[in-house]
Amino acid sequence: MSNDLAGDTEFLGLERLRGTGYFEFTVTPQLSRMDGRLYGGTAIAVSVAVAELVSERSALWMTTQFVSTVETGTPVGVEAEILAPGKRTNQVRVTGKSPTGAVVFASLGATGHHRDSGLNGVFETRPTVTSPDDSTGWTSPFAGMREAAGDAIGTDLGFNRVLELRGASIVDHPDPGPGRTCLWVRRRDGAAVTPALAAYMADMVPMSVGRALGVLAGGTSLDNSIRIGEFVDTEWVLLDLRPHLAAGDYGHGTAHVWSADGRLMATASQTSTMMRFDPDNLPWNRTT
Amino acid sequence: MSNDLAGDTEFLGLERLRGTGYFEFTVTPQLSRMDGRLYGGTAIAVSVAVAELVSERSALWMTTQFVSTVETGTPVGVEAEILAPGKRTNQVRVTGKSPTGAVVFASLGATGHHRDSGLNGVFETRPTVTSPDDSTGWTSPFAGMREAAGDAIGTDLGFNRVLELRGASIVDHPDPGPGRTCLWVRRRDGAAVTPALAAYMADMVPMSVGRALGVLAGGTSLDNSIRIGEFVDTEWVLLDLRPHLAAGDYGHGTAHVWSADGRLMATASQTSTMMRFDPDNLPWNRTT
Repeated sequence: MSNDLAGDTEFLGLERLRGTGYFEFTVTPQLSRMDGRLYGGTAIAVSVAVAELVSERSALWMTTQFVSTVETGTPVGVEAEILAPGKRTNQVRVTGKSPTGAVVFASLGATGHHRDSGLNGVFETRPTVTSPDDSTGWTSPFAGMREAAGDAIGTDLGFNRVLELRGASIVDHPDPGPGRTCLWVRRRDGAAVTPALAAYMADMVPMSVGRALGVLAGGTSLDNSIRIGEFVDTEWVLLDLRPHLAAGDYGHGTAHVWSADGRLMATASQTSTMMRFDPDNLPWNRTT
Repeated sequence: MSNDLAGDTEFLGLERLRGTGYFEFTVTPQLSRMDGRLYGGTAIAVSVAVAELVSERSALWMTTQFVSTVETGTPVGVEAEILAPGKRTNQVRVTGKSPTGAVVFASLGATGHHRDSGLNGVFETRPTVTSPDDSTGWTSPFAGMREAAGDAIGTDLGFNRVLELRGASIVDHPDPGPGRTCLWVRRRDGAAVTPALAAYMADMVPMSVGRALGVLAGGTSLDNSIRIGEFVDTEWVLLDLRPHLAAGDYGHGTAHVWSADGRLMATASQTSTMMRFDPDNLPWNRTT
């Protein structure tokens, strides 16, 4: 298992405070969205990391709900509680709060000890795609719009600071449909992808729902969820986005996380509010 | 939208107590598992129903974590809180407690108003299966074992009291793989399936993981999650179970919920602990 807790702690800037289960991190530029607020992928990555630290077990599943937001530079206090301390499996709760005490995110999840000789299997098929070397650089479809809009915040915020993304061409898809999107993703520093980092990377389902709808649309996540299997050492992961449906301006979908050598390590999913974009009224120029 | 809140309240035996957001229900036989404890599908159905009642909006997404359990006959107190009261979307938290005050289940989710002219689409393909009339009666693979074991609890507990299940033959599957299982499910009283009832029905992913593994195995859910789209009036739903992976005795997978006429209304997912069954030591004869 590739659970590099020290690496996660460093990436997220997590500090363990006095008292069991209390942590703090600051919303640095790499932990922000492009609009200068806490990135949802950060909140679930922090939840996975502190759940693993407190329970001394591997994360199995985590759901993170976004309640309010904070801006880049803000310190966030994080409490991790073990609600049901089973011998093998722990049910955990993680709560992130702003300096004013407002709940920023609320998470539920579980951690556990994988049994070495336990039941194992993968029941999904990986899409056949071009290799990272044969895939092209990829940036968010909104980055260009944002630059065109002459936005003053700059392009130094967001996961692009620390992640390299390449758009893979899909040669053959096991479950074809609108919006299927495959991205190769790695840390720019080349470190192996942990469950917490996979959760940080997988917060891209709303983008794929927009692509499936065939309109210029973006989404605001209501939650990030991840279900975690066996991780292997891998620098590149293939993010295999499969949007499911949209109804009344809400969207749902999933992202499979594959290792470079084709192992399904995790499946993520999200619900989001969807909005059509009007180039004259871009979302990072308003307050929601 | 088919959100029959009165019907859900009656099915679940929900009583609204004095004070905003307080409810109670009793774990009746139809709300129990076959082993005489609270059924996980009940907990998420209750969470969906009370979230809709408190927020006066449709449920969009719900995750329910199982913290402890209670036996058939126990009253469960339920608190529903609106954590973030947006104009259109509400982030909610639901907590179920036993008479001793112990947390039984904890849920996070969102409710909202679907925009009539909002973004809509379905990006998944329904398996081609036999119709309900051409499908055969289906009971849990463990029901027979349980009877064979001469279990004294009787067969009057569980969702079979109120649901009819038929195993559909898969003619063509858009995403083939081990364990793919399609079940037609309806309420025995013929009432239309609501989001809460779909959540009650969809708690069957661990069974499909067991089938995918090809061993006699069952699972105990760590959570139930559902993402909800547009519901139409439908008596039968097709539960389209797609197990994803198992690792170290933990399993993950999803269930698509289709209307009889082929609309994707919701997608559910679960993580569970998996265990091989030993016929001489059946799980309902032990205390976990």
